[in-house]
Amino acid sequence: MSKKFGIIFGGESFEHEISVVSAITLKKVLSSFELEFVFLSSNREFFLIDSKDMKSNFFSSGGYKKSKKLTVEKNGFFQSGLLGKKKVEVDCFINLIHGADGEDGKIASLMEFYDIDFIGPRIEASVLSFNKLFTKFYAKEIGVKTLDYQHIKSRDGLKLKFDYPVIVKPLRLGSSIGVGVVKDKDELEYALDVAFEFDNEVLIEPFIKNVHEYNLAGCKTKKMNLSIIEKPQKDEFLDFDKKYLDFSRSSKPTAAPVSPKIKNEIESSFEKLYANLFDGSLIRCDFFVIDDEVYLNEINPIPGSMANYLFEDFGSIILELSNNLPKRKKITIDYLYINKIQSSKGKV
Amino acid sequence: MSKKFGIIFGGESFEHEISVVSAITLKKVLSSFELEFVFLSSNREFFLIDSKDMKSNFFSSGGYKKSKKLTVEKNGFFQSGLLGKKKVEVDCFINLIHGADGEDGKIASLMEFYDIDFIGPRIEASVLSFNKLFTKFYAKEIGVKTLDYQHIKSRDGLKLKFDYPVIVKPLRLGSSIGVGVVKDKDELEYALDVAFEFDNEVLIEPFIKNVHEYNLAGCKTKKMNLSIIEKPQKDEFLDFDKKYLDFSRSSKPTAAPVSPKIKNEIESSFEKLYANLFDGSLIRCDFFVIDDEVYLNEINPIPGSMANYLFEDFGSIILELSNNLPKRKKITIDYLYINKIQSSKGKV
Repeated sequence: MSKKFGIIFGGESFEHEISVVSAITLKKVLSSFELEFVFLSSNREFFLIDSKDMKSNFFSSGGYKKSKKLTVEKNGFFQSGLLGKKKVEVDCFINLIHGADGEDGKIASLMEFYDIDFIGPRIEASVLSFNKLFTKFYAKEIGVKTLDYQHIKSRDGLKLKFDYPVIVKPLRLGSSIGVGVVKDKDELEYALDVAFEFDNEVLIEPFIKNVHEYNLAGCKTKKMNLSIIEKPQKDEFLDFDKKYLDFSRSSKPTAAPVSPKIKNEIESSFEKLYANLFDGSLIRCDFFVIDDEVYLNEINPIPGSMANYLFEDFGSIILELSNNLPKRKKITIDYLYINKIQSSKGKV
Repeated sequence: MSKKFGIIFGGESFEHEISVVSAITLKKVLSSFELEFVFLSSNREFFLIDSKDMKSNFFSSGGYKKSKKLTVEKNGFFQSGLLGKKKVEVDCFINLIHGADGEDGKIASLMEFYDIDFIGPRIEASVLSFNKLFTKFYAKEIGVKTLDYQHIKSRDGLKLKFDYPVIVKPLRLGSSIGVGVVKDKDELEYALDVAFEFDNEVLIEPFIKNVHEYNLAGCKTKKMNLSIIEKPQKDEFLDFDKKYLDFSRSSKPTAAPVSPKIKNEIESSFEKLYANLFDGSLIRCDFFVIDDEVYLNEINPIPGSMANYLFEDFGSIILELSNNLPKRKKITIDYLYINKIQSSKGKV
């Protein structure tokens, strides 16, 4: 049975534009499904976007402001008209807002609060993957290695824990925004300026030259569905532009040549990281391999264009995932406690 | 300058009724301020409650269903009428929803998303304190001790890591709901039944008889404001009823007799835990003292009746806190990236 998907994109996020490009890509990739497009503007208004308007300049030019406004309420998105409210009929939404709003738990909260089916990380998964420090706590706990780090809330009196080169990252951003590789003391000031521009907390890690990086995406339905392992193209490290200019590459994915041992370790690390925290979402984990050991670099709970290019049959996987979303347990309030107080102690 | 506060209470939570009692208590405690009351029903509808209706049986009888319905939108709560929407005028809301919805990040997300001033934990603070396992990761990282634990997702093949007695807790609830002390193997089955009733993950800890427990509440404004340290009354451990039947005790608080060393350690642990994760909220931390060492038991980011009884001048502290909420950094979207793609690569 086919389904109608609703793609939510945009958001008040440094990755807003990436999300627009992601959504345009997904329109092509999921063209075998009926689709609706829900745009969240930078000042947090929702708009229903016509399929024909899914072009990047429709957003950059502000054209979207003439689209129909939506509100999010119990069970869905609604447009108001003279005859009352009309629901945007969708079977399952896909949260495609990268960075803040989408990956920090806000969209997950709205969808859970209003009981709307969606593909995307739930609140806990959002918070643990959005904050790079929390990701390290989590990985450590479940036995997946990460690089050593230094967490700073201020640059005052900073004593570097590592030798140069180091990599400086805002604590809560994805897409390499605000990330800088620092070769010596002179470059450190500037890298800290940039990182603190984007967050009030910063993470510093040793930078390992020519490190082998591997990406793996996947999701759990009735079984675990893993993509191929990809070795992303690297130019020292992937900057914002390069990382996203090839979103909609149509070439078939090629698996990276890794030993069975490393392949197995990457896959089992992914499965440990995924379950059950990321139920309901399709995530991409980026790993380093150093001296034949696998380290988690980061978890992307809403990867660019959903990492569609890593899967042979992306459409089927999204459909399967939408059929296997985590169930919410309804809580019944019976007022037994208040009734008990009232009968035993008089009115409260 | 005085302020008008809005108290948000109820929620789809096992602690819904506790929240109702908390709100009734706060009505008395904050009577020197103008107040509005926003009730979230168990099926997630918001209602504006008249001050005169702030009685527990108004909720248990369903009387609230005749109150005015509210929607939450940009900058506030609104009621719809024939002449359009009318905003509930409030300077600052207080999130008083205990447990799910209130403490799991959903209310924080709604308030942050719609840019509404509120007292209460932000999203990250909510997730880290609501999940007892994440609280342990966090405490460990910042150097505050917690008890050893065993985290289980299933009871199958359970091998206890500790000798009896142990304490069995649902991973994500507050207010001691679903918590059981287990003296031997025979009692374990029942305690697991209860705990798994409330959550699909469970934490087991050693149960230390006659442990000294101390509570401390506080919040950061321009400075750190700490309450007295209280030794809560204990009957083995505090169960749901006992813990809350004395919410509105009007007797002045008495500081627990602790040594300067322990007092200092409890206070400095509190400050480490608070900053800066809990900015904007008034929290209560519950500590154990074992062999002269301080251990965090749990963080209550929305303590029952806001732990008002632990402060000499609760009203002033709430007012101060409302004047020192964390500022949200507005993100500007300039579409530079899309414009660049368009000019360099043709239309996307």
